[in-house]
Amino acid sequence: MAKPSPKHAGDQVLVDLGLAIRKARLAMKLSQEALAVDAGLDRSYMGGIERGEHNVTAINILKIATALGIKPSKLLLDSGY
Amino acid sequence: MAKPSPKHAGDQVLVDLGLAIRKARLAMKLSQEALAVDAGLDRSYMGGIERGEHNVTAINILKIATALGIKPSKLLLDSGY
Repeated sequence: MAKPSPKHAGDQVLVDLGLAIRKARLAMKLSQEALAVDAGLDRSYMGGIERGEHNVTAINILKIATALGIKPSKLLLDSGY
Repeated sequence: MAKPSPKHAGDQVLVDLGLAIRKARLAMKLSQEALAVDAGLDRSYMGGIERGEHNVTAINILKIATALGIKPSKLLLDSGY
């Protein structure tokens, strides 16, 4: 189980980004497991990202957005940023 | 001097993001030092980000974009993503 980023877990931008990822994943009827595999990320880390527990990096934002079939800039826009 | 992310330094998305940050900073006639101060980041870390040496996190992307007066999604779009 990936430990949450102690310093940043729950930071608003991370929570909003996690919700946007979740929303896009559900719209594609993908399980968290399937998205994690497609993005090349650990499943439990992926769960933590959706809960806003991890300060996601640019490279992982690109991996997740690519797996969701959307541009990283769209994912941030959908997050409200 | 902030050490480059050994694993990701030079990754294309980081290089492109760094170039977009630099371009936006120069358009605002800001020094690297001034942008670092405004974004609340270490100056040498900021230099490394512009050179594509650091796998920038979501929170730091937000800090930098806010300091540049643009939305994080616009910064990613300007980076080509």
